[in-house]
Amino acid sequence: MTKTVAALQEEMTAKGIDWLFLTPSPNFRYVTGYKALPLERLTLLMLPSVGIPKMIVPRLEFILAKEHVKIECEIESFSETDNAIDIVSTIASGTVAVDPYMWSEKLLKFQGHMANSTFIDATSLINVVRTVKSEAEIAALVEAGRAIDWVHEQVSAMAFLGRTEREIGEDIKALIFESGHETVDFVIVASGPNSASPHHEVSDRILEEGDVVVVDIGGTMPSGYCSDCTRTYVVKQIDPTFQHYYDILQNAQIKAVDGSLIGVSCEDLDSIARNILKEADLSDYFIHRTGHGIGLQTHEDPYIVQGNKHKLVEGNAFSIEPGFYIEGKYGARIEDIVISTSNGPINCNNRPRNLIVVH
Amino acid sequence: MTKTVAALQEEMTAKGIDWLFLTPSPNFRYVTGYKALPLERLTLLMLPSVGIPKMIVPRLEFILAKEHVKIECEIESFSETDNAIDIVSTIASGTVAVDPYMWSEKLLKFQGHMANSTFIDATSLINVVRTVKSEAEIAALVEAGRAIDWVHEQVSAMAFLGRTEREIGEDIKALIFESGHETVDFVIVASGPNSASPHHEVSDRILEEGDVVVVDIGGTMPSGYCSDCTRTYVVKQIDPTFQHYYDILQNAQIKAVDGSLIGVSCEDLDSIARNILKEADLSDYFIHRTGHGIGLQTHEDPYIVQGNKHKLVEGNAFSIEPGFYIEGKYGARIEDIVISTSNGPINCNNRPRNLIVVH
Repeated sequence: MTKTVAALQEEMTAKGIDWLFLTPSPNFRYVTGYKALPLERLTLLMLPSVGIPKMIVPRLEFILAKEHVKIECEIESFSETDNAIDIVSTIASGTVAVDPYMWSEKLLKFQGHMANSTFIDATSLINVVRTVKSEAEIAALVEAGRAIDWVHEQVSAMAFLGRTEREIGEDIKALIFESGHETVDFVIVASGPNSASPHHEVSDRILEEGDVVVVDIGGTMPSGYCSDCTRTYVVKQIDPTFQHYYDILQNAQIKAVDGSLIGVSCEDLDSIARNILKEADLSDYFIHRTGHGIGLQTHEDPYIVQGNKHKLVEGNAFSIEPGFYIEGKYGARIEDIVISTSNGPINCNNRPRNLIVVH
Repeated sequence: MTKTVAALQEEMTAKGIDWLFLTPSPNFRYVTGYKALPLERLTLLMLPSVGIPKMIVPRLEFILAKEHVKIECEIESFSETDNAIDIVSTIASGTVAVDPYMWSEKLLKFQGHMANSTFIDATSLINVVRTVKSEAEIAALVEAGRAIDWVHEQVSAMAFLGRTEREIGEDIKALIFESGHETVDFVIVASGPNSASPHHEVSDRILEEGDVVVVDIGGTMPSGYCSDCTRTYVVKQIDPTFQHYYDILQNAQIKAVDGSLIGVSCEDLDSIARNILKEADLSDYFIHRTGHGIGLQTHEDPYIVQGNKHKLVEGNAFSIEPGFYIEGKYGARIEDIVISTSNGPINCNNRPRNLIVVH
């Protein structure tokens, strides 16, 4: 983390940024090692472009902060009746890059009290460190992938017919915990026509023979790193037209994983999957981007989307998840987490990608 | 919820606010009924002071939004390559109150694209509706209280001696789910000297005879409403000095609950507990406010703290949780959720408040 602080300060100096303000968030945790909760009281890391960072914490979290902050840092606490914003404004001024996840009420207070300062989004600054995963981070993502693969393995043997999406979802939730995740972040069990809604969660719909079921699940491991994996199941029998579409999707997904190479731009990677679906007249039904970065958050940079000219570098981690969604009928998605390395892409998810028949 | 929209619009007109912008948050859920996740793509409720609200959603969440939004609302979707901020800026301008929980990166984008608009914190506007709980909300908080009381009942029969805080915490986590909560929001098992750190979570410290153990736990029910309750336990035997301090604390907590009457100001309510601890020379060790509001969030207005002149009204819901914390030695806290009504305070938590001996 000392390396992270140095890298951020170097980038800040190059960009003319005087301060980086981080409130409890994945960025805060990444830089400090301290997993604080975002609450109404101010907890703030103030990183200057030169010198030792300062942290402002509520008095009742002082012991906690001292214990968990892993970087060299002056920690100052304030009591319930102090105005924490006043403390900050006497220390910092200039161009301040703020945590993209800072609550607006806090940013508005800073803007109100620090009229001569300019506040900018810290995303591009933070991305310099966070989008390039270290060996330990890659190992954590591989571990998370293995855990969620185990869950999909159990799902493929589960009873589907006659049960509701919600019941199946509850079973999956328990399995995600059992697999070693610390939290369950989302459970999508989208059956029949619901499979055409990419972010559908669960409903009381009862599963019928012939239903397509998109199962998109993820959680956070004790390491803080996230899993996210989608497989498409079908109850007992497969509609031949759907199977035909699915084969095209599967080919698109595999080609995009194989194409996740260093130097390829995010938008070109998106095009690999999109063009294959286009040739089969399915691209109108592929209504979202090919993928999103992943790490301490399920969604982070880099996004695999048209318009993103970022070229993949060693250690970028992201999902490859093309899909098609035909409203009122059915949909499908296949998703793996992939890491680009000089030895080619690492695929964190290794369950079969074909349509899986369940009963 | 139609009533909520009308109440907000009336308040906006009175205050000269042209628009209310809400992104996925407890406020967004409260106003629309739609529990959307805060993500990088923009989901925005745009409520004008007069007229029908508009919602901007990503294309892949359009079906979901149509299904879950419970207010009259025009829903417009945008695709992955559209600029959602441009869409918003062609519709709205003027004084815009923004969700206090909106991510700063989004507020900064609005500020950059809508140079002639003024952005203010929507907290005081939102509080007009959210701090006054309806009968259904009171019932939901009572239900949440009953569930967490059941967990504390199990905890009082649990094995403590020789186990770690983390192990006990894992058991409690499972019990919180078993009690009907949908999520576990926090589990504090602070033993021995750790009990002097109010927001300590769990550690690998092994519990010994004579340890004080502060157990502060909470979660969210399927209704969306939160529980939060603290009891203090002691392993096998009680230090007489600690028992003496604790008796004073218990008296302070009971008096503050009894004093949670309509018309009493939040700071005067804080003083009830604080003065009792002061008389016993314990007030220097009571390093936090007496309580926080609760509802769809564990912490929300009104805060029971010095400086808050808000006078309690029918339907305010908040914690009463005085404590004392002697660094290096021990600490204690007793916490109930209380609702002020014209029939006197409703206490949502009803487990014994005395020091509970465990083994």
